[in-house]
Amino acid sequence: MENTLGVKVPPLSVPDRLLLGPGPSNSHPLVLQALANQPVGHLDPFYIDLMAEVQVLLRNIWQTNNRLTLPMSGTGSAAMEATIANIVEPGDIFLVGIKGYFGSRLADMASRYKAEVKTISKSWGDAFTLLELEEALIKYKPAVLALVHAETSTGVCQPIEGVGELCRKYNCLLILDTVTSLGSVPLHLDKWKVDLAYSCSQKGLSCPPGLGPFTMNERAEDKLNRREGKVPNWYLDVSLLNKYWGSDRVYHHTAPVNMNFGIRESLRLIVEEGLENSWKRHQDNAELLWSGLENLGIEMHVKKEYRLPTLTTVKIPEGINGKTFTLHLLNEFGVEIGGGLGELAGKVWRIGLMGYNSKKENVEKILNLFDTELSKFKA
Amino acid sequence: MENTLGVKVPPLSVPDRLLLGPGPSNSHPLVLQALANQPVGHLDPFYIDLMAEVQVLLRNIWQTNNRLTLPMSGTGSAAMEATIANIVEPGDIFLVGIKGYFGSRLADMASRYKAEVKTISKSWGDAFTLLELEEALIKYKPAVLALVHAETSTGVCQPIEGVGELCRKYNCLLILDTVTSLGSVPLHLDKWKVDLAYSCSQKGLSCPPGLGPFTMNERAEDKLNRREGKVPNWYLDVSLLNKYWGSDRVYHHTAPVNMNFGIRESLRLIVEEGLENSWKRHQDNAELLWSGLENLGIEMHVKKEYRLPTLTTVKIPEGINGKTFTLHLLNEFGVEIGGGLGELAGKVWRIGLMGYNSKKENVEKILNLFDTELSKFKA
Repeated sequence: MENTLGVKVPPLSVPDRLLLGPGPSNSHPLVLQALANQPVGHLDPFYIDLMAEVQVLLRNIWQTNNRLTLPMSGTGSAAMEATIANIVEPGDIFLVGIKGYFGSRLADMASRYKAEVKTISKSWGDAFTLLELEEALIKYKPAVLALVHAETSTGVCQPIEGVGELCRKYNCLLILDTVTSLGSVPLHLDKWKVDLAYSCSQKGLSCPPGLGPFTMNERAEDKLNRREGKVPNWYLDVSLLNKYWGSDRVYHHTAPVNMNFGIRESLRLIVEEGLENSWKRHQDNAELLWSGLENLGIEMHVKKEYRLPTLTTVKIPEGINGKTFTLHLLNEFGVEIGGGLGELAGKVWRIGLMGYNSKKENVEKILNLFDTELSKFKA
Repeated sequence: MENTLGVKVPPLSVPDRLLLGPGPSNSHPLVLQALANQPVGHLDPFYIDLMAEVQVLLRNIWQTNNRLTLPMSGTGSAAMEATIANIVEPGDIFLVGIKGYFGSRLADMASRYKAEVKTISKSWGDAFTLLELEEALIKYKPAVLALVHAETSTGVCQPIEGVGELCRKYNCLLILDTVTSLGSVPLHLDKWKVDLAYSCSQKGLSCPPGLGPFTMNERAEDKLNRREGKVPNWYLDVSLLNKYWGSDRVYHHTAPVNMNFGIRESLRLIVEEGLENSWKRHQDNAELLWSGLENLGIEMHVKKEYRLPTLTTVKIPEGINGKTFTLHLLNEFGVEIGGGLGELAGKVWRIGLMGYNSKKENVEKILNLFDTELSKFKA
């Protein structure tokens, strides 16, 4: 079939991929089945009930009682922007801890909302200490501190215990990026006194990309309620969204109904497995990967205490072209692993074991491929 | 299964609905099948090719050659906001023609981007004449004129021929809302000299909600390129998105891969049917609905020359509670029709015949229900 602009488009045929990169990860088959339901109306009583279920499940998996907990109708980056758009006012001092790609993104976004952005940095592969964070809070007196819990670009898990207390001591809000940790790495938002957090659907949740879980507590709501003028972003305005997701059910935008069918199943499946069981599974499989890689003489980029179970950065051995090897795995075996991003481009591969894909057989498969295929690329 | 927050969530079971309201409409079964594929990576060579296909198909269905044509990773409202966020600068005069709910939304959004918003209005059910638009262009000298082609709240199709010429004569950009017309109502963006347009996935395209087709031409790009400072919305920033959707393929956000599988199929199916055949099918089925309703003594809200084929507003007969009747159709027959929005709340029902649902058997079904059920609700 040829359309009038002259391009042939045959019916869709999607290649099989095992997604062991930085995300998306593969989806749970029941999630895909949920997506394939015919949609219902976004004000259908059935859908209204489903929204409430999604909220309860999300609160559970984030370990929070925040009323304002909902999936933004966009990807994780939209949810990231929602945390900033709603609470940042022009001139607010916005402190970002940058130790990878996504810290820089937070800084870029905050500058667009006219925050006075301040940054502290660590090398890509390291994490901040509580002392470093406290010194920065004292120095910059920010209204908001933003940190990335699980840096997808470096494979580092930033310890968060104690940070929330510091933020309250120095009277600032804490935004936490949990894109690569929700559902798969221990997270206790309320216990840790995190004020706003966001995530994505396509990693620990085993759902396709397209939704951005978002949550904010009453301290953050207070700042939103005190702001002068409207939120400068209509689509992500929580004061409007709250009228749809809250008890009023006032139409805001037509919800991505099928994606919400999907995330509802993905969250339910985590609760069915048990949240702590899911965390343990991710840790166990990551350790299996790490010891297997070490046995092959391959080095990890991050020291063990800071390593994320969901995303491992692996040093590309000398003499190997990282890109050639990832293309080989994709084209010959249908296995995707990621290359390095930003400072780590060309230096590391990124291996993801997230959600549905965090299982022993996948660890064995990728170890086996490193064992048999990597030697073919050595000079 | 009970989670720790105390709510039982059983496996998903979605009720069957025939969606004959203002949208979402039902999806084509092949689109749902496409959605249920396992995702691939957003930088996978297969996906990069698919993105190009989606762009070519979208250009075809909008009848435009605009390079910057892509689905925003959000719903139609996100795409609406994208047209504004990218080209509006503080102080720009932004003229909106308001003749229904969605005109007001455009005005609200533009004000958040610090435009000086001016409005002209017609009653809900009417359309603007070329003369009225020209007078407003002379009076307000706007940088941008925004109009809704197909007003989902009123069922009016705004004639657009000649408006683009006026906008060029008076040196302003034309934004057109085609949310309820793309794929189903004649649209000739380039011929009509429309500078920016947006739509949604869940109406004429027979895909679930979740993507917002967006397009802008070189005149609009020029304004974007001339702006001082960054676009004040990161997620919808076309200058960043262009690096991913253009030839550079620089990572911006993780694309909603499965939704793009879906829209690719939905666009392909329209091209397979033939764009003009799709337009004719919608017109034919709408006329069947209109004459059938007239035969039942039911009046339409909009005069025939302005009526949208995709969405018909029907006057609620005196003595009938509109909401009770729609709930009866939903609960007893699984058929959704819409109530009135804004000024028309309580006064009209909204019957949609969009995309996959625009077929003779659905017209017969809804006419039959009006025939047999409505009398039960008469006082």
